[in-house]
Amino acid sequence: MSIAAKFSRLGTDNAPGQEVRQGSADILTLLRGEPLPGVPVDFSHGDVDAHEPTPGSFEVFSAGVALGGRQAYTEYRGDGAIRELVGERLAAFTGAPVDARDGLIVTPGTQGALFLAVAATVSRGDKVAVVQPDYFANRKLVEFFEGEMLPVQLRHVEAPAGRSGLDLDELEEAFRAGARVFLFSNPNNPTGVVYSADEIGRIAALAGQYGAKIIVDQLYSRLRYEGVSYTHLRALEAVDPETVVTIMGPSKTESLSGYRLGVAFGSKEVIARMEKLQAIVSLRAAGYSQAVLRTWFAEPDGWMDERIRRHQAIRDDLLAVLRGIDGVFARTPEAGSYLFPRLPALAIPHAGFAKALRLQADVVVTPGTEFSPHAGDSVRLNFSQDHKAAVAAVERLALLVERYRA
Amino acid sequence: MSIAAKFSRLGTDNAPGQEVRQGSADILTLLRGEPLPGVPVDFSHGDVDAHEPTPGSFEVFSAGVALGGRQAYTEYRGDGAIRELVGERLAAFTGAPVDARDGLIVTPGTQGALFLAVAATVSRGDKVAVVQPDYFANRKLVEFFEGEMLPVQLRHVEAPAGRSGLDLDELEEAFRAGARVFLFSNPNNPTGVVYSADEIGRIAALAGQYGAKIIVDQLYSRLRYEGVSYTHLRALEAVDPETVVTIMGPSKTESLSGYRLGVAFGSKEVIARMEKLQAIVSLRAAGYSQAVLRTWFAEPDGWMDERIRRHQAIRDDLLAVLRGIDGVFARTPEAGSYLFPRLPALAIPHAGFAKALRLQADVVVTPGTEFSPHAGDSVRLNFSQDHKAAVAAVERLALLVERYRA
Repeated sequence: MSIAAKFSRLGTDNAPGQEVRQGSADILTLLRGEPLPGVPVDFSHGDVDAHEPTPGSFEVFSAGVALGGRQAYTEYRGDGAIRELVGERLAAFTGAPVDARDGLIVTPGTQGALFLAVAATVSRGDKVAVVQPDYFANRKLVEFFEGEMLPVQLRHVEAPAGRSGLDLDELEEAFRAGARVFLFSNPNNPTGVVYSADEIGRIAALAGQYGAKIIVDQLYSRLRYEGVSYTHLRALEAVDPETVVTIMGPSKTESLSGYRLGVAFGSKEVIARMEKLQAIVSLRAAGYSQAVLRTWFAEPDGWMDERIRRHQAIRDDLLAVLRGIDGVFARTPEAGSYLFPRLPALAIPHAGFAKALRLQADVVVTPGTEFSPHAGDSVRLNFSQDHKAAVAAVERLALLVERYRA
Repeated sequence: MSIAAKFSRLGTDNAPGQEVRQGSADILTLLRGEPLPGVPVDFSHGDVDAHEPTPGSFEVFSAGVALGGRQAYTEYRGDGAIRELVGERLAAFTGAPVDARDGLIVTPGTQGALFLAVAATVSRGDKVAVVQPDYFANRKLVEFFEGEMLPVQLRHVEAPAGRSGLDLDELEEAFRAGARVFLFSNPNNPTGVVYSADEIGRIAALAGQYGAKIIVDQLYSRLRYEGVSYTHLRALEAVDPETVVTIMGPSKTESLSGYRLGVAFGSKEVIARMEKLQAIVSLRAAGYSQAVLRTWFAEPDGWMDERIRRHQAIRDDLLAVLRGIDGVFARTPEAGSYLFPRLPALAIPHAGFAKALRLQADVVVTPGTEFSPHAGDSVRLNFSQDHKAAVAAVERLALLVERYRA
């Protein structure tokens, strides 16, 4: 593949957070009516002013700076003492041992971990099973390394409560067709569904049967709502620990995105490759930032419960507004802070509607096509926002749906 | 290339900073004599405790955290206002305009910039001219993207004062053989030589003649010693700005490595690709860290002069010790904080000598083979260290050279 072709597939025009670089000439002539006033809400990412970083995180960062060179220059895979600390907590959280010396790497964000994990397992022509819809970078990562993507549908609209709706037959078909890596997020981004214990067990069994590696992005696995049970794939007895890499980080639930921290843990062989690559990609996660991991899984008592409670309240209010729009489908997210409503037919393309929302209602959402070619009629909202502003913003979205209804 | 083969070429066992993961079984039986006592010195990287970060950098970081979401979530290429600020200063420093909107990207360290720049210009089978010796990651980056490396020798030992000794005939030969990218550092890492105005002019002319792109790593271009003149390639009249990417960052001279900040500026096409890739590699340089760039090129009056003066004093004292060792060649670095002495013949392999230094003298150096296959008898020392400790450490090195002399 020529380098121009390779990069033409890496479009970021609709990527979350890049809206400031978007042109709007294509939509201006299609706009109807006047702008809707209201507090701007950027649903492309969480609002860390409304949901502040973990208490004490800045102080721990400051202490890292005060440590000087020892904190600035760490092993490429991250400071040894911090890996030990985090490794123990991740073992307790996920229910399986973590080898802090050889089976854990600290990365610049979970994005950094995903990039390195895919780079360490996928090369030209390798077949990779990827869920649709799923985190938008998954597809791009596989394409960048010239792997062949075998899509597996997540039928979240049709699935009964308690199941994600992953098409397990399609997954087996992908393995049978030669996929040797399965990459997915749990909870799923963008739908917020959590895979059931049965589904995770089937995924693990199929991967084992076909000798595939699993990269599971558990970024949002701490932010789980009332009554939701969660299965850590890496903790299943039947799973060979060398076949799984689990990715997490404190950027979302803990609002620590400004420090760019992620971790990957599991397969020592894959982690070793990831470190070799990190040496030429970015050397290491910012040394001083690494110190902030000391606060992770050690938040003040009750802090996480309160964070979950507040997000659940926003979720429920937004769902009520969305479900009041004729023709909208919105499944209740079981974890994380994403809503992925499917909109009714409109008189303008759905991608244009996302632009109209931004231009006429100061509301930024991410088009569904970023997550699946079959989700063009959906939009993703990160509802980790100011509660009142978010409700008002979705009310404006509802008004605009009526204005542009087909 | 299989993924195992690809990663086997990405060795980090001797990479600077990774010594803690090294085995030593191979050398233990060859060790002679007793350990030499002294303050440990890690010459694999600078000591940011001896040469502290830019005054005010932490305060500017803190202000970034206080800004909240605006600073945590920036465009992938970095915060717009900070790009404007830094763009103006880089234009003044390098003597040519910088397009802050489309021709500048903020990255996680200069390593991040190098990775993205090579990824954006080199794909499978592309020929790339690479200097020997040069920064150790350059070779690995070209190999990772499956480019073909055409080495060009830097004859720094033989070169007259005022010239780097780049073999311009070999460079033209590489272009004639099809190299369409030339990647080099100026000042050169590891030798500390600065390319002359004539050499930079010839490089630019050759690249223009053969239609090649140039990636120039100017990481150390601010730390220049008395009487040294420096030519910014991007400022030459004959250069098409779209063919050059210049890379810098505040990690070294300014001791800000713990924040992981770099920038690349120049070719808009290449920068656009770099941003697309950054979106899946690490999203962005840590948002809060980006704020620290506000201090860059805006240090207190006299601060940089003093930093240069202190480094020049260390350089001169270390050179005196090294030149007192029979058979050592050490060229005077014109810029930066690296010394690259060539050692005499020893009774043990030079790579083993580097391990002996660490085990017996608590002195860490980087073997020359990291920088060139022809530099196995040299070692690199980053002399941005505590002055007294560094002199004592090089005195221990001198004692060990005598102990192991062939």
